[in-house]
Amino acid sequence: MQQLGRHILVEMYNCDKEILNNHKLIEGYMNEAAEKSGATIVQSVFHMFNPWGVSGAVIIQESHLTIHTWPEYGYAAIDLFTCGDSVDPWIGLDYLKTMLKSNKIEIKDIIRGETSKIRYFSNERFQNMHFKPINLEENND
Amino acid sequence: MQQLGRHILVEMYNCDKEILNNHKLIEGYMNEAAEKSGATIVQSVFHMFNPWGVSGAVIIQESHLTIHTWPEYGYAAIDLFTCGDSVDPWIGLDYLKTMLKSNKIEIKDIIRGETSKIRYFSNERFQNMHFKPINLEENND
Repeated sequence: MQQLGRHILVEMYNCDKEILNNHKLIEGYMNEAAEKSGATIVQSVFHMFNPWGVSGAVIIQESHLTIHTWPEYGYAAIDLFTCGDSVDPWIGLDYLKTMLKSNKIEIKDIIRGETSKIRYFSNERFQNMHFKPINLEENND
Repeated sequence: MQQLGRHILVEMYNCDKEILNNHKLIEGYMNEAAEKSGATIVQSVFHMFNPWGVSGAVIIQESHLTIHTWPEYGYAAIDLFTCGDSVDPWIGLDYLKTMLKSNKIEIKDIIRGETSKIRYFSNERFQNMHFKPINLEENND
């Protein structure tokens, strides 16, 4: 395995302003994007700002999705940070682009936890490196 | 204003493994990092994974902080996404590096919501562009 996680940073332009300002819709789309990507949702937290804009995060067993919207500019900053081979964040991204009605996006696809660097910088020798185990601890309190 | 937000992606190597696996400590440090940066915390969500690792997000009025830890490798992926001039995420980052006892970090500092691009790609003409208004809507339900 080359990396523990992959992190897709999306600049989404020319979105539907009404949708960007509806935190219930945005939360629904973000959760749906997580599920369509094959992720398992742990918790979803979304907030509406005054006078406009939505911020939220979907914590998934395979890391997270976040969004911040500026309805007044038709712009949203979206992150899809995932681990493991069973999740395909590009499916979720495609879904979000459609639902937010964007006609222009820009993407950065960034490696997180490059295993060769972890080995190089560490004082230990790691053998088989794996991404985060995906069993959620039952008792979080 | 050149950009709506700034996003600092941190690869933190050689952290203290015990700390990385303690979700109460990690949550405390992340919240403290947000406050030291001058951010206003909206909500904090953290989860412990089985058999190890912590994932969490601190939603701030100025965007978010997130962390995912791999205690077995002494590695943490940390994001500090902030808006506005009143927040200094570098202070929070410095605090986290100290508290997680990392001796090696790598950083990407990424522009989010570049105003020139928002103007260029949009069909509208925006005059004075501002980062997200920071008044939290009282009723989020």
